[in-house]
Amino acid sequence: MPELRKDPITGRWVIISTERRKRPSDFRIPHAESLGVADCPFCAGREALTPPEVLAYRSNGGAPNSSDWLLRVVPNKFPALKVEGGLEREAEGMFDRMNGVGAHEVIIETPDHAKTLAAMSEGEIERVLWAYRERILDLKKDVRFRYILIFKNHGSAAGATLEHTHSQLIALPIVPDFVREEIDGARRHFMAKERCVFCDIIRQETSAGRRVILENAEMVALSPYAPRFPFETWLLPKRHGARFEEAPRQEYEALARLLKSVLTRMDKVLERPAFNLIIHSSPFSGETTEYYHWHVELIPKLTRVAGFEWGTGFYINPTAPEEAARVLREASGG
Amino acid sequence: MPELRKDPITGRWVIISTERRKRPSDFRIPHAESLGVADCPFCAGREALTPPEVLAYRSNGGAPNSSDWLLRVVPNKFPALKVEGGLEREAEGMFDRMNGVGAHEVIIETPDHAKTLAAMSEGEIERVLWAYRERILDLKKDVRFRYILIFKNHGSAAGATLEHTHSQLIALPIVPDFVREEIDGARRHFMAKERCVFCDIIRQETSAGRRVILENAEMVALSPYAPRFPFETWLLPKRHGARFEEAPRQEYEALARLLKSVLTRMDKVLERPAFNLIIHSSPFSGETTEYYHWHVELIPKLTRVAGFEWGTGFYINPTAPEEAARVLREASGG
Repeated sequence: MPELRKDPITGRWVIISTERRKRPSDFRIPHAESLGVADCPFCAGREALTPPEVLAYRSNGGAPNSSDWLLRVVPNKFPALKVEGGLEREAEGMFDRMNGVGAHEVIIETPDHAKTLAAMSEGEIERVLWAYRERILDLKKDVRFRYILIFKNHGSAAGATLEHTHSQLIALPIVPDFVREEIDGARRHFMAKERCVFCDIIRQETSAGRRVILENAEMVALSPYAPRFPFETWLLPKRHGARFEEAPRQEYEALARLLKSVLTRMDKVLERPAFNLIIHSSPFSGETTEYYHWHVELIPKLTRVAGFEWGTGFYINPTAPEEAARVLREASGG
Repeated sequence: MPELRKDPITGRWVIISTERRKRPSDFRIPHAESLGVADCPFCAGREALTPPEVLAYRSNGGAPNSSDWLLRVVPNKFPALKVEGGLEREAEGMFDRMNGVGAHEVIIETPDHAKTLAAMSEGEIERVLWAYRERILDLKKDVRFRYILIFKNHGSAAGATLEHTHSQLIALPIVPDFVREEIDGARRHFMAKERCVFCDIIRQETSAGRRVILENAEMVALSPYAPRFPFETWLLPKRHGARFEEAPRQEYEALARLLKSVLTRMDKVLERPAFNLIIHSSPFSGETTEYYHWHVELIPKLTRVAGFEWGTGFYINPTAPEEAARVLREASGG
């Protein structure tokens, strides 16, 4: 059983995924490149290579796990967390642990191995966002879970081990560190000013314009004021809303449009970079409705300065966000 | 001038190092491997290739910047921060910034290009620790600085761009995120229990033994209970002390001995991994004396799951610390 453990100093939870445990000798082997089309378990016609689907979109009403799908969600074959069992919170002296209970799913965004997210149509990208929503709404019913993390690793430099475009969902019995930090900061701002800090940022940035990459009626894409990484990009709904899964239809449509354009621009300017995409949304509990604001963070993997930054949480960014925004604004975006 | 900017949500400061700024086209070029011996500016006899030294140890009393040194500290030729000028804190609307004032130095640990830290003698490693101490004590006199970060990137996978063994020092006008987090957590523990959380950990771990790698009279090396990375290792003084630079002589001696042994074991078990080493010490101000506890964190760079973890602060670790400790304990360590 995987385990969740809490650092007694910082309060940060980590997953010790003992069933994926590697022996020391495993670390000696250089990591392979992403798995190509020949062995890809995500291609249409290879449904038997994944666990049975938990959700799929089909245009012709075919049977579950048949090969005529447009999008498929399946449990991760090598899950970091297990969906069965109780949390069994307990102490080990001064330390805190619980069972690694959670869901770990894979959203296979298209049956086409060669298509990237940027190459998909706006309608196809919107379909992916709807799948995220459906899975969140379903998993929220499980009272053991407090947070659902949705993310995408694109390219082996960003941690993807399979080439075929996909996202991942992890449902957690705890609220991860970065969310806690954001929530705490947003609460402090709200207590002081009775305004959402994200709404304040959107107002200031869209009025100043220097760090805006692109906007439409519903959403804005911008380079944040204090980015950790070169070309880090945030996509935010202009209308206040704490939860991704409660967004109105037109925001998914607008987000799909913006995502396609920003990814196309990045592909052009940064030569098809590896990237991480992360949905930031409110935890299930807590009075976050007034002060938290869901959004998407997009981080192209351009620099190799990672080691030190991991260990310290301290970032040196060689590209000013004003320049990143200008470069992406001036690029044409599909 | 580089700039320090504060994220208005999390309060995290980042350095926007505009003078190291890269144009988008620069990111297209794959990063070169570490610079080898032929062009190495850190080798003895090439002193003219670095800025003039700020500290050096010589056994024969030779002139500054002459080539007979044992250890040399020089300003970084491409500093992330500039040492001249005032902070000039100011707002940009709701955002906060200040000038990127700070010191960025390089500690060249040995004149011998081929020697790694693990291959150095205990006396040579202790000399490196004394150089850290001397530079901290000197830079602490500058009232603009609040924190000094000392770290070492070993191997290109850990972010080193030069092969020749060296550490780096960054003096900062702010307290970086990971230190704030630790300080806050340690303060909470102290408020609740009137004990240092690190002292509590040391007592529990040395008595249980499962996660202890190695100890001597002064120091202990252990795998922390909730490690973010496989084989993450902490080295802590058994005696309570908040500041590395105030440690008694025997702790540097003991730390040098432990470091050499742990690095030698890692080289054996993990096949000479790239690693990051970070000194965690108290900020200059604040009433941290009773509750903060300086220590060293050592993180071998073994997995490639980085991209996602950076963006989320959420870690999945495939190796239990009990196993990592056992493997390193059972390896012989020079």
